[in-house]
Amino acid sequence: MSLLVTGSIGIDSVDTPTGSVTDVLGGSAVYFAAAASFFVPVRLVAAVGADVPAGLGNVLEHFKIDTRGFEIRAGSNTFRWHGKYRRNMNERETLAVQPNVLAEALPPVPDAYRDSEYVFLANTDPGSQLEFRRQFPHCKLCVADTMDLWISTQCAALTDLLRNIDGLVLNNEEAEQLTGEPNIIRAAELIVQMGPKFVIVKKGEHGALVEHDGVKVVLPAFPAAQVVDPTGAGDSFAGGVMGHLAATGDLSHENLRIAMAWGTVVASFTIESFSLDRLMRLTRAELNERFEHYRSMLAI
Amino acid sequence: MSLLVTGSIGIDSVDTPTGSVTDVLGGSAVYFAAAASFFVPVRLVAAVGADVPAGLGNVLEHFKIDTRGFEIRAGSNTFRWHGKYRRNMNERETLAVQPNVLAEALPPVPDAYRDSEYVFLANTDPGSQLEFRRQFPHCKLCVADTMDLWISTQCAALTDLLRNIDGLVLNNEEAEQLTGEPNIIRAAELIVQMGPKFVIVKKGEHGALVEHDGVKVVLPAFPAAQVVDPTGAGDSFAGGVMGHLAATGDLSHENLRIAMAWGTVVASFTIESFSLDRLMRLTRAELNERFEHYRSMLAI
Repeated sequence: MSLLVTGSIGIDSVDTPTGSVTDVLGGSAVYFAAAASFFVPVRLVAAVGADVPAGLGNVLEHFKIDTRGFEIRAGSNTFRWHGKYRRNMNERETLAVQPNVLAEALPPVPDAYRDSEYVFLANTDPGSQLEFRRQFPHCKLCVADTMDLWISTQCAALTDLLRNIDGLVLNNEEAEQLTGEPNIIRAAELIVQMGPKFVIVKKGEHGALVEHDGVKVVLPAFPAAQVVDPTGAGDSFAGGVMGHLAATGDLSHENLRIAMAWGTVVASFTIESFSLDRLMRLTRAELNERFEHYRSMLAI
Repeated sequence: MSLLVTGSIGIDSVDTPTGSVTDVLGGSAVYFAAAASFFVPVRLVAAVGADVPAGLGNVLEHFKIDTRGFEIRAGSNTFRWHGKYRRNMNERETLAVQPNVLAEALPPVPDAYRDSEYVFLANTDPGSQLEFRRQFPHCKLCVADTMDLWISTQCAALTDLLRNIDGLVLNNEEAEQLTGEPNIIRAAELIVQMGPKFVIVKKGEHGALVEHDGVKVVLPAFPAAQVVDPTGAGDSFAGGVMGHLAATGDLSHENLRIAMAWGTVVASFTIESFSLDRLMRLTRAELNERFEHYRSMLAI
């Protein structure tokens, strides 16, 4: 049930229609780890520069993240991202990005992590994801995230990756880009034919779908009348999904559906504030209560 | 449990990325009535011109529609619509529209229909909808559909209508247009403050949500890998919702959610072919089977 995540730790600046923050903690691995830690202990493989993000230590400690794979690289700078959300909060543009340490050598995987059974390769170039993948020979479930940039510039490496992972997570625009198919249900079928056992397509405010061995499940997002900042929603969704799967060790269709529901619910808290603020205040009791609410909403 | 629908009967031409049809039967009242008739007998108030659409008689007979309120108006022409769907099948543009009989006097409501308890006012101008509304003094549940044109040109009449109906059905762009609020969950809250007890926001391939007395429910669409023609999906969704409500007579939150599920499932058949073709072949057993599939998909 050991769950490991590789990915970014970032210093984010975010503009939304209702507010802005500058130089706050972010990054795919951080959101994922925080969300997943509600279900199982989480191992982190990620690097920052000497400009360690403010609040990172607190967050890693609060969520009891295993930091033996966390590296502070002297002479490097932390990944930085500045994004702006449009009025509907479902579309965003990147105003500035500085890869910094992400463009350097991958952080080493500690030997003690080689036995990891559940591995999430958060979004980075598919070549690096495959290099990570090969370092976990005992992996029972390896899932990767990807993005439009890699689909358009590293198609061969991505195709190779897809043959070596169990699950892929991406959003609906990316699913269409990868397959050329505008119907995302059909796009998901086509992605599964490229290698992974399942694909999860994230639709932001419209929820998510999974295609697994011919079974299709679509779940709505939790209805949120107030969205402060969608940053990290997708990564914390994935954290909830993988956290539940690792905690239960059950990879059936039925349990994947339950895992999607947990991911949906934990992500619904992430978007209630900037950065990790809401997740830092979230209790397991609140999480359970909203899960029950979500379950009731879907009981027909 | 008498269910009545007022609305259009049309002669449609439809272009989709995968095919086209010319001069086929369509119209909001037809799709609604066909879908609702799987649940309860349906009364129809609608008019066509002397150019009665091909196949209309068969459809009305097949679904056992009560046609005492159906009028063939000599010297008039039937409503015609030509629409084109974009590649994703979720957006469409109107290439041509001829209101014809819809722009003339409203079809009269037979005296025998005055006792109707469940009334659906399919999309037309809100003044006409209100005029119909006043002819059903025993109405237990009156629900109206609307569209962008009336929101932008007849806001006062629409506001008046909203104070005199129990439920409003519209799509997500229309909900934003009506309220100025891009978050549709919040937009739904604002619409309920304008008068109706509930509002249903249709999101096409992303499902639908209902806001009812502070309770919010979002349900996904049934996952469809092949969409032939989305025309009539919204009207047959509404037919399933109203049909189930009329059949059960239960207007609780819980039953409204079940009704939304029936609407979702019946609409998923509508889009499998052009015009009414799939609904004409649909059996109650098939409908029940897909409902069970949908229920299982959402059981978490």
